Amino acid sequence: MKGVELKLKYNTIEFKDNKLRLLDQRNIPNEVIFFTANNYQEVKFAISDMVVRGAPAIGATAAYGVYMAALEYKQLNKEDFLFKLKKANKDLASARPTAVNLIWAIRRMEKLIDENVEKNIEELVSLLFEEAKNIALEDINTNKMMARNGNKIVPEGAVILTHCNTGALATVDYGTALGVIREAHFTGKNISVYADETRPRLQGGRLTAFELVEEGIPATLIADSVAATLIRDGRIDLILVGADRIAANGDTANKIGTYMLSELAKKFKIPFYIVAPVSTIDFDIESGADIEIEERSSNELTHIKGIRIAPEGISVYNPAFDVTPAENITGIITEKGIAEMPFKESLNNFKNE
Amino acid sequence: MKGVELKLKYNTIEFKDNKLRLLDQRNIPNEVIFFTANNYQEVKFAISDMVVRGAPAIGATAAYGVYMAALEYKQLNKEDFLFKLKKANKDLASARPTAVNLIWAIRRMEKLIDENVEKNIEELVSLLFEEAKNIALEDINTNKMMARNGNKIVPEGAVILTHCNTGALATVDYGTALGVIREAHFTGKNISVYADETRPRLQGGRLTAFELVEEGIPATLIADSVAATLIRDGRIDLILVGADRIAANGDTANKIGTYMLSELAKKFKIPFYIVAPVSTIDFDIESGADIEIEERSSNELTHIKGIRIAPEGISVYNPAFDVTPAENITGIITEKGIAEMPFKESLNNFKNE
Repeated sequence: MKGVELKLKYNTIEFKDNKLRLLDQRNIPNEVIFFTANNYQEVKFAISDMVVRGAPAIGATAAYGVYMAALEYKQLNKEDFLFKLKKANKDLASARPTAVNLIWAIRRMEKLIDENVEKNIEELVSLLFEEAKNIALEDINTNKMMARNGNKIVPEGAVILTHCNTGALATVDYGTALGVIREAHFTGKNISVYADETRPRLQGGRLTAFELVEEGIPATLIADSVAATLIRDGRIDLILVGADRIAANGDTANKIGTYMLSELAKKFKIPFYIVAPVSTIDFDIESGADIEIEERSSNELTHIKGIRIAPEGISVYNPAFDVTPAENITGIITEKGIAEMPFKESLNNFKNE
Repeated sequence: MKGVELKLKYNTIEFKDNKLRLLDQRNIPNEVIFFTANNYQEVKFAISDMVVRGAPAIGATAAYGVYMAALEYKQLNKEDFLFKLKKANKDLASARPTAVNLIWAIRRMEKLIDENVEKNIEELVSLLFEEAKNIALEDINTNKMMARNGNKIVPEGAVILTHCNTGALATVDYGTALGVIREAHFTGKNISVYADETRPRLQGGRLTAFELVEEGIPATLIADSVAATLIRDGRIDLILVGADRIAANGDTANKIGTYMLSELAKKFKIPFYIVAPVSTIDFDIESGADIEIEERSSNELTHIKGIRIAPEGISVYNPAFDVTPAENITGIITEKGIAEMPFKESLNNFKNE
């Protein structure tokens, strides 16, 4: 596969010596430090505490988590091995409720076991290792294909608005929405970017801004509530965001704030695209109404870096995601092509390819 | 005047012994400490650095600033006194460009001088002191009248969304939009409040949440980007916000993020009211297009409490306000009544009353 090959200086996910080394995204941009998960329990913690985040990165991380659980139990008899592994998988799957890639990766690992259940434990463990590596490698290739597909709809000189972090830090490498932005930049399209800071966890301000600065892509950071006036005033040509889960009809769960952008985009006729791998599509759910929305700790609003920024005693409502209805979405850019209305049909084609 | 009389435990603005004591809003909710301005230059700093903020509070503060400048120059000959005072007023007026109450209060003080220019300096200084006190006192009365007018449109049991801080901390006492909320609460309407945290300066999370907790009004803090889904899902009955400047046609400059709320409110037919004194209406400007929007420091997005939350080298666009078009506004609640469409006419009636 040809195409631009660029990397952050740091790997988001690296598996070595039976340990999973994750770039600790809780500390960027202040410090580039790594979190080492020594067992699947620590992998689960890394996912739930958002050491690693972004749907594709969570998928690859979870796959290694399954493998690490298998390593832990490989001395048991086969029955116990399979039982314990299933339990560990269930535990891992509960780390974050909205990201479908988490479940997708774990199911893929489980399917491999089901299909090879007659093999001995050593063979199974070895197969799981290969599958985890495949999931990670495939993610990189998938991202590059998305980037190339997406780049087709990026006009020369486009001013692109993006939300949250969907870059190399949200994936194994390259990125989804930010992957398209990378591709457009490095193919010389003279683009520039507005990045929403993305409260409450500031993935835009901390992570997307970090990646854009590292890559030298012209970029401006804004508070989430600034985007509406930029869209109204014709200062945005294109909106690109990622997804945490896409229903069969195209309704898309993504970082809180995405829905608001989609309403403004629709009103002012700005192209609004989701960029996500086919693994993010949950064909089992018909519409966004069936997507469970993760609520996160009130601390994310009341504290920053341990410092109190809201008074004691205040209630907090802190949903991590919102659902953008399919009717607000211009297209869904995947590694298999760009789905358009009606999404139920166009997405289904990708499933069966 | 009858009505509910309630106070925060602390005064936002207090003038004593020729010093202006301001509740330092940069530190709330972590610390309740006071900033003492000893001269008009320190008053200007307090306004520009947002020790004090909120259009009405800025007006009263500036009025005391004019008086303090007069005190400073009262030993000069009259010509120098008037010249220096005019210069000080111009300096004060430049502290923040969008808040019309700043200019309004300074003009009112200057008008008093113009009308009494034949009087001696001591008399002038004394008149200025009375006028500054009047501006502060009138603000409290104005707020209470707004609160009573506004309460008429608050339904029993309403869930009210508000943005930024428009409470006792934004005024001399009581508040504008939050004044209406106070009134509704204390007249037993069983209301509850969602407060946007209001990035980047977190006036909602720090100040509004602080006032709501202090008053025991049921309230929930949300990230700014959560409001859109609450509005869509029918969980908000009424939106009340303040204003920094209102054009003659009703276009309203208010804290960044207000415009976004107004678009969602319009789409989902949720009543959207501005609450502001008539002094916030700038009859000299026809529409929002003529309102200068203050851009503030990039630090507000890249740092919180001195801690870096975005990488070095990232550009920032940080407008403090946006303009909500009159067509998105259900009504403008003032001390003289509630203006409705067409605002040009209804607002003009208040001017001439």
